[in-house]
Amino acid sequence: MLGFARELRVLGELLDLSSSAGVTCLGSQDEQGSGFLALFRALALDDGIDHILMISGSTRREIMRSLRSKLMSLVLDKALNLIGLVAAGNQTLVDLIRESELSRSTTHRLLSTLVAHGYLSYSSKRYDLGFKLLELGEKKKRSLDFVETLRPTLQEYAERVGDTLHLAILDGPDIILVERIAGRRELQIRSHVGQRAPAYRTAVGKALIGRRPSHTWNAYLQNIPKHYARNMTEIRSEFENAKRRRFATDFEEVSLGTCGVAAAFRVNQFVDAAVSINGATVYFQNDRLTQLSSTVIEMADRFQSILGNSGK
Amino acid sequence: MLGFARELRVLGELLDLSSSAGVTCLGSQDEQGSGFLALFRALALDDGIDHILMISGSTRREIMRSLRSKLMSLVLDKALNLIGLVAAGNQTLVDLIRESELSRSTTHRLLSTLVAHGYLSYSSKRYDLGFKLLELGEKKKRSLDFVETLRPTLQEYAERVGDTLHLAILDGPDIILVERIAGRRELQIRSHVGQRAPAYRTAVGKALIGRRPSHTWNAYLQNIPKHYARNMTEIRSEFENAKRRRFATDFEEVSLGTCGVAAAFRVNQFVDAAVSINGATVYFQNDRLTQLSSTVIEMADRFQSILGNSGK
Repeated sequence: MLGFARELRVLGELLDLSSSAGVTCLGSQDEQGSGFLALFRALALDDGIDHILMISGSTRREIMRSLRSKLMSLVLDKALNLIGLVAAGNQTLVDLIRESELSRSTTHRLLSTLVAHGYLSYSSKRYDLGFKLLELGEKKKRSLDFVETLRPTLQEYAERVGDTLHLAILDGPDIILVERIAGRRELQIRSHVGQRAPAYRTAVGKALIGRRPSHTWNAYLQNIPKHYARNMTEIRSEFENAKRRRFATDFEEVSLGTCGVAAAFRVNQFVDAAVSINGATVYFQNDRLTQLSSTVIEMADRFQSILGNSGK
Repeated sequence: MLGFARELRVLGELLDLSSSAGVTCLGSQDEQGSGFLALFRALALDDGIDHILMISGSTRREIMRSLRSKLMSLVLDKALNLIGLVAAGNQTLVDLIRESELSRSTTHRLLSTLVAHGYLSYSSKRYDLGFKLLELGEKKKRSLDFVETLRPTLQEYAERVGDTLHLAILDGPDIILVERIAGRRELQIRSHVGQRAPAYRTAVGKALIGRRPSHTWNAYLQNIPKHYARNMTEIRSEFENAKRRRFATDFEEVSLGTCGVAAAFRVNQFVDAAVSINGATVYFQNDRLTQLSSTVIEMADRFQSILGNSGK
C-alpha cells in the first residue's frame, strides 16, 4: 500500500498541486502521508481516503484511470483560467502568478504553451489575447449564417427605429448577443457581440424561453440571486406573457436605467433567435413601448419569413 | 533508482502516454523498464536515458520539475488540438478519437472540460465551437480599435473601388486580416477576418515588412517551401520595392488567379497596418494596377492622418 501512496505523492508533486488554489498540504511531516492527503484534497475526494487505503490491487487500475482524467481536467482548467485572467486585464507574469495562485514555473509553462498555439500573444513583457481566438471566434460567427442573412433587414429597421438593436440566441441558461447595431441616441446601451447574460433577466431571454415547453421554464430560474427584485412566480408569468403576446420586456433587470423589448422567431428546426430594441428607459415611455412591441413582432415575423423563404 | 523508474512509469500511465500519438511502448515486458522508456520517448528525451539512470537524489527534484512542466504542456497541447479538430469539422466523438489518436476516455474528458468552459458546445451528439470563443474573439477584435475608427472611411473607398478591401497586421511571420469589405464583382476573393497567411506571399505582408528594418527581413523568408515560384532574392527585392515605392503587390502568390495591391500605414508607436485591394487577376490589368497603387497609397495616407488626428 505504501507504493500506491508514493505514486499519489509523486503525482501531487508533478502536477504542482501543493501550490495550486484550494489545495493545502496537511501538517504532517510524514512525506508519504502528507503528499497522499494533499493530493486527495486537491481532487475533492477527501471522503475517499479511508476507503482507498483499503483498496485491493485490481481496483487500483480503476482509480488510476479516474485520477488521470481528473488530473487532465485540472491542468486544462488552470490553462483556460489563465486565458480568462488575461481577458480580464491581467497582462504581466507577476499579475498572472498572483491571480492564478499557481507557481511561477507552472504559470510560465502554461502561458508559453498558450502563446505557442496563438491563444495568447506576448510582447513588451505583456500577455494579451491571441489572434487564434479571433480566428476561431470569427469561424463560430460564420456558422451563425442566419445573422448574415438578416443583417440588411436589421440595418433597415435600425435606421427607422434609432435605438440599439440586438439579435440573441439561448445557450444553456444564458442568452448570447450574436449581432448588435448601435442606435443614434445620446445615451447608448453598452453591449457587444458575444456578450452573455442570464436569460431570465433579459427581454430576448424571456421571449425565447416563452417559446420553449413550459416544463423547462423552472430550469431557467434556478440561479436567481437571493435579493433579486423579482421572484420566480413573477418571472414565470412574464414567460407566460411572452408566449401569449409574442413579445417580452425587461426594465432595469440587466442594468440600472436600461430596458428592452423583444420578440422571438424560428431560425431552423434546432434554433430560435430573438430580436430586441434596447436603450435608456427615458426613451421608452408608455406609448412608445406599445409601438415598439408591434415593431419587434413585425421584425420577428419578417425575419422568420426571410429565413423560411431562403429555404432554411 | 528503481523507485524513480516506478514513479515515471506511473506518470506515463496516468497521463495516458502509451496510447497517445507518437508514443510507442517498447517491447520489453519488464514493467518498470518499459514504462520508463515509454515515458521518455513521449517526452522526446530518448538521448537522456542513460544519463538519467545515473542521476543522484538531488538532481531528481530538478528533473521532476522539468517533467511536470512538460507533462502540463502535453495535456494542454492535446486539448487545444481537439479545439482545432472541431474547428476543422470533426464533430463526433468517434471522429475526434480517430483524428486525435487519444484514448476514448481521455478524449471524452478533455472535451467535457472544454464544453464546461464554453470553448466547445455539445448538442445532438455533435461537438461545435463554443460561444466563449466568439466572446474572446470579439474582445480581441475590440482591442484593435483602429479598425473601428477607420471603418467608415474604408467603406467609402469600398464603394468607389468595387473590389474587396482588407486591413491586415503582422503577427510573427504571418499577416492576419483584421477587416474585410467584400467587393461587388462576379468573382469574389474568399477571405475572412482572422485569416492568417505567410507574410512574404501577400501584398499586405510585403508592404508591412518593407517598413521594418531590413536586417529583420530574412526572418520572414525562413519558411519558403522548396518549390516555391519565387526565391529569397526576388522576394527581398519586393520588400525593397515596397519600401521605396510605398506599395506592394502579390500575383497568384496566395492562390491561383488572385492578386492584390497594398500600402502600409502607422497605427501607433507599436503597430503598423496595411490596406489592400484584392480580387481576381482578370480585373487587375496593367493600367488599372497603376491606378490602384495610387489609390492604396492615398488610403494609407488618409488612414494615418485620421489616426494621427484622433490623437493615437
